[in-house]
Order: sequence, then C-alpha cells, then structure tokens
Amino acid sequence: MANGTGGSKDPILVVGGGIGGLAAALRLSRSGHDVVVLEKAAQFVEIGAGLQLAPNATRVLTSLGLMDKIREVGVFPNRLRLKTALTDENLSYLDLGEGFIQRYGAPYVVMHRNDLLTILLQGCQEQPSIELLPGKEIREVENQPDGVIAVCADGTSYRGKALIGADGLWSTVRKKFSDDAPVNSGYVSYRGTVPTDRATAHAPLDEVVAWIGPNLHYVQYPLRSGNLYNQVAVFKSDQYLKGMEDWGNSEELEEKLSVTCEHIRTAMPLLGRDHRWPMYDREPIDKWTIGNITLLGDAAHPMLQYLAQGACQAIEDAEAIGMAFDREPKNVTEALAMYERARTIRTARVQRNARLWGDMWHIDGAGRLMRDELFKTRDPDDHSHIEWLYGKRDLLEVRP
Amino acid sequence: MANGTGGSKDPILVVGGGIGGLAAALRLSRSGHDVVVLEKAAQFVEIGAGLQLAPNATRVLTSLGLMDKIREVGVFPNRLRLKTALTDENLSYLDLGEGFIQRYGAPYVVMHRNDLLTILLQGCQEQPSIELLPGKEIREVENQPDGVIAVCADGTSYRGKALIGADGLWSTVRKKFSDDAPVNSGYVSYRGTVPTDRATAHAPLDEVVAWIGPNLHYVQYPLRSGNLYNQVAVFKSDQYLKGMEDWGNSEELEEKLSVTCEHIRTAMPLLGRDHRWPMYDREPIDKWTIGNITLLGDAAHPMLQYLAQGACQAIEDAEAIGMAFDREPKNVTEALAMYERARTIRTARVQRNARLWGDMWHIDGAGRLMRDELFKTRDPDDHSHIEWLYGKRDLLEVRP
Repeated sequence: MANGTGGSKDPILVVGGGIGGLAAALRLSRSGHDVVVLEKAAQFVEIGAGLQLAPNATRVLTSLGLMDKIREVGVFPNRLRLKTALTDENLSYLDLGEGFIQRYGAPYVVMHRNDLLTILLQGCQEQPSIELLPGKEIREVENQPDGVIAVCADGTSYRGKALIGADGLWSTVRKKFSDDAPVNSGYVSYRGTVPTDRATAHAPLDEVVAWIGPNLHYVQYPLRSGNLYNQVAVFKSDQYLKGMEDWGNSEELEEKLSVTCEHIRTAMPLLGRDHRWPMYDREPIDKWTIGNITLLGDAAHPMLQYLAQGACQAIEDAEAIGMAFDREPKNVTEALAMYERARTIRTARVQRNARLWGDMWHIDGAGRLMRDELFKTRDPDDHSHIEWLYGKRDLLEVRP
Repeated sequence: MANGTGGSKDPILVVGGGIGGLAAALRLSRSGHDVVVLEKAAQFVEIGAGLQLAPNATRVLTSLGLMDKIREVGVFPNRLRLKTALTDENLSYLDLGEGFIQRYGAPYVVMHRNDLLTILLQGCQEQPSIELLPGKEIREVENQPDGVIAVCADGTSYRGKALIGADGLWSTVRKKFSDDAPVNSGYVSYRGTVPTDRATAHAPLDEVVAWIGPNLHYVQYPLRSGNLYNQVAVFKSDQYLKGMEDWGNSEELEEKLSVTCEHIRTAMPLLGRDHRWPMYDREPIDKWTIGNITLLGDAAHPMLQYLAQGACQAIEDAEAIGMAFDREPKNVTEALAMYERARTIRTARVQRNARLWGDMWHIDGAGRLMRDELFKTRDPDDHSHIEWLYGKRDLLEVRP
C-alpha cells in the first residue's frame, strides 16, 4: 500500500478536539504515538448539558486512568427509570447498583459534558507527546506517499502518519468518504441545567428518569456531585414537517409539552430556552477509511441520542483505534482498516437501534399500549437487551 | 310514556332474519312473546364462510337449547393461535380445552355461518309463536300510541308492541336514531372454504390460527365436523386509499400477500376469489332506542372482526333483550330502555377493542417488534385480557 507505515516518527493528526478526538489523542499517546489535535474553535469547550456514560465507555475511561477525576464531578445513579410522560406511571427500570457494576466491570455515570471534556483536556495537556492546536480549521486532508497532510484555513499545514477525522456531525473529513448528508429526524431538543435546590420538580436524586410519550419525551438527572440538575425536553416538530422556518421554537415546545403530566409541567419553567438542538443522525456507511485517513465519533456514525451512546461510541472508537495501532505497529494502513472493519459493523447496529429505541419511546396508539404493557411486565433483572451494548467485548472483533 | 306496554298480545316485530334477528326471535318466544320476523331477502340465508363463537355467545346458545345441534356440525378447537404472517413464528396461544370451558361455562366453537343460521331457523320454525316472513323490505317504522307499526315496500304493514331493528350494517331502522354512516376501514377480506382433504396447506386441525403481519392477516380453521376448511385473507388496500374504483381486487390480494410466509402462499391458491368484503364498522352511539323501537346486532354496533365478536355480541343482545322483557313484563318502553342502557356501554367497548386489536395485528416497525415480544413472553394461562369479554356477567348490568 502506498502509505504503509507512514513516517513512523510523524504524529497522528486528530481533526476535532471534542470528546472523541481528545479521548483518541490520549489513548494513542499512551501507546507511544505523538499526536497533534487540530481544533477549529478558538477554545476546547463542549456545549450542551448532561452526558450519560454507560459501562462500555467507563471501562475505557477507567483504563485511561480518568475515573478518579470523573468520580469527583460525576454522579453514579442507582437506577435508570422509564415512566409515561402523559400519566407519570412507572414502566420499567434498570438497576445500576453493585450487581450491574460487577456484571459490566464499570459503573454508569452521568456528568456535565464540559466536565468530561475538561478532564480529557487536562489529561492531554499532561502529555508532552500531545500537541493541542485550537483555531485550526481544516480545508483539505490528503494521503501522501509517506503519510498524510492536513491543510488549514489559516494557510498552515501539518504532516502526519495518519489522520483521524473526529470533527463531528458536520464533518469536513467525512466528505472524502461519502457525499451523504445528515438526516433531520424532525425532533428538536431543549437542554439545560439548574442548581438542584432551585429545581421546581425533580425525580429521586439517585435516578436518571426518562418520561416517554407520543412524539415527545423528557429526561432528568443530577450532575456535578448532585449540585446541578439536568433537564432535557424532546419533541417532534409539526412545524418542521410543514416546512416552517422557525420550527421547534419555544412556543411549539410549550404547546407540545402541555399534554404531559404535572411533574413535567412543573419542571419545565426552568428548562433552558436559549438554545435548541435539531436532532440529526446519518445512515450508517461501511467505508470510512482511505489509506491512512479515517473517521471517529459523530463524524463516522452520528446517532440519535435515544440509547445515550453518542459519546460512548466515540470513546469506544478511541480505544479501538489505539488497540489497532498496538496490533499493527508497523502498518498504519492496515491498523486503520482493522479499526474500520470492526467499528463500522458495531456502530451501524448502535445507530439503527438508537432510531428504533426512539420509535419505541415516541410511539402512540396500539403500539403505545403494547409498549407500556411490555415494559411494565419486563423483569428488571433481564439484561438480554443490553448485553450486546454494555457487555465486555474485544473492540476489534468484527461482530455487531 | 306514550307507548307503555303496547298491546300486550301484539307480537314483537323483528326486522331482519340474520343470526341476531333469529336468535332474538327464539329467545323472545321462549319468554312467551309472539314474534314476527320481517326479512328483506327471498330466503333466510347467510353469506360468508366460517364463524367463531366464544363462550359469551355459546352460553346463550346453550340456554336456548341449541348446543346439541351445534355439536353435530361445529368444531371445538383446542387452541387459538397467533403466528407471524411474514415468518410463520409462534407468538402466543389460548388454550380452549377443559380448563377454559370450566372457567367460562361453555366451549369455543367454530362453524359455518350458514349452519348456525339453519339451526336458528329450524328452532324458530318449530315455534308456533314465531312467524317468519321473507321478502319483506322495510320502508318505515314508527311508534304509535299503542305500539309500533312497520310498513313494507310491498305495501303491507305490521303492528307490534315493539320493533327490533336487526337489519345489519346498512340498517334502515338505524336511520331513526342516527344519521351516521358506516366507516370504511380500507381493509378488505376474502373468505372461503375448501374440502379439508384438498387444502394445499393447513394448520393443525384442532386449532384456529391467525397469522398477523403489517397491514394484513390470514386465518385458517376447520368447519363442519372438520370436513370443510375455512380461510380468510385480509389486507389494507392502498388502492382504496388512492381512491381507485376497483380497490381490493384479487390482483391487489396477490400482491399484498406475496410477502407472507410459505404456508400462507401455499394455502392461497384455493382461497375463494368470487366475493370480497370491504370491512366496515361504525362509531359507537349511546342512543339506539326510541319508545318501543330499538336496534340489535350489526344494526346497533357494527364492529371490525378482529375480536370475532360480531355474531357473539348479536347473540348477547338477543339474550339481554329477552331478559329485559322478563324483568319488565308490563312496560315495553322500560324494557327496551333497560336493554339499551346495558348494551350500548358493553358493545361500545367491544367495538373500540376490535379496532384496537386490528391495530395490534397490523402494526409495523417498532410497534411490531414490541408486539411480538409482548405476545411471545405472554403467559398462555393469563386470562386478564379476555375475562371482561368471555366471562360470565349479568347482561343487563350497566358496566363495560
């Protein structure tokens, strides 16, 4: 192959300094690689509010040595709970206690997105082998006979032995692999945090609760050692379907959520209204590596958030790409191909299941009645539906 | 009340000589009433094929003394079974054996529609107090100071102390109570029987099997002591939705059912194609009695066939109206009001549940996956969802 090993002393270029990009930088530096992170923004910062980390991600974060810091700011809930949005009835729950932690080898954690980014950033800053470069917008990336080159909008360019496009949903690097576009689900989310003692209605503080209902849902859980309280409202925008420009605005939020139970209506006044997120994903692709250039995280497999796996899969990617370089230390191209083979299969399943899970949450009519009955009669100790997602696995094994 | 008792020696007029009308005539004659049955057609005959009788109906037929004759021609299946139409997988079943019969006090029977009509007709013919008049199309029915009058298209008219409109889905009598129209579900059914030994694919001969799938289903069970085999195919017609004139024709049948499992595709060639039934019901109404005129069966509460309760509810009506006359022997108007109070509530629930059950059978996507899992994990001994329908009850009690 033209690129083969690349100049083995060249760094690995990571495009994008979000959670996935920084996790990959840290993982690769642990295996002895030099890494340059090129971030478009002037600062390394995450927007958004809460973030859920399932054991498939916290196992990786543990092995990266970050769990002590996460423990300081994260919250370890005892239960994930599903309730009905219209009537506030219990549907089902998943126990996250000792048995869960034993089974999956790591805990379930919720934390502020920016707290996780800060921990990853500090980890990277402590590594002399990682160079963090903000203000670097990518114009072009290309395979070269002896590696890769990344050209930035400011005229600078960087050489590396490999390049990882971790530049998110609207990825520039992805354009090398696919001319597909993000798929707008027609759903919009509002997210925000309030000081816990000001929350007008909160669930038990040891739970992550999702109230699910026809074309909408609401999520609450504590963050930052329990001092902040996270809220998310999501609804399907009729205005979007009608092609209206200002679809999903706060008036539509009020109207759509007005049918929900008293708990949600009481909690909503303090839900952040400043910013809203239209919810996108993409169709899975089976090819995201060319030569020594590959993708990672949302750039590779953006997904709807119904499984709360967006960050988790990016963190799995980071571990997998580190493992691939470890197994193929002398052939960058083959390492990236190995990474691609395993990850495209796995993440396509997560993308598809996230959509399906959203459909299950938002279903109405006969489907809603059957869903409610199915969930209510479910054995909380039945892990058969999450084993594939949370269970321990060889991240380079080619199976969904 | 104007009509009060009516002339107590006048007969009760029953408009319509189908299953409901004849069952009512027979039941009322047992309580000492004279009955005149006015049937539009030149003969008393049922079109269609198989018919399912659940214990809520067979209890009534038992008390009418008809079970010996039904036993001669009916089939007593051991199980109702649900399977997937696309993959022929078992979903769930209901055991109809000794425990079921003990619980509900009567068996589940399947038989030819016309066999049941013949048995009812013979029963009526044996009663001197029942006059059966075919070729009597109703033009007008009216309350009079001392009873009711029915005017026929042939110029004849009949007086009675009460009139029961049992004239089916397109009821003439119903127009006195409601200007509503039948609701077209967009589904069409094909039904027919074949000699069992010629059936190209049949389920076990002691079962009623429904294969359910997205926008379609298929039903098979034996009839007439097992010598005939009944088949029903039902599908949602896209051609209907598009407003095409010849919607639901046999080409569309072939196309829609072409996605089903091998069993269905093997069975279909011998499915009758001569006649098709667009499937209608109506919205429930809460008023179907004026003075001494009331409705019964499909004229009162036409329903989709997904609970197989159309004939059963008409038979319940017959028993209930007989009981009402027994309890109010001196006041026809009050007897009919009592009948209406109890039956409108009960049959509205059955109508609504029939629609819901259809939605459950025909669902696709996430709802289908959850339905399949719900049904597969269902305890076959759990009767909580059918107790309200099959369980013993006072048919004049006002509860759903």
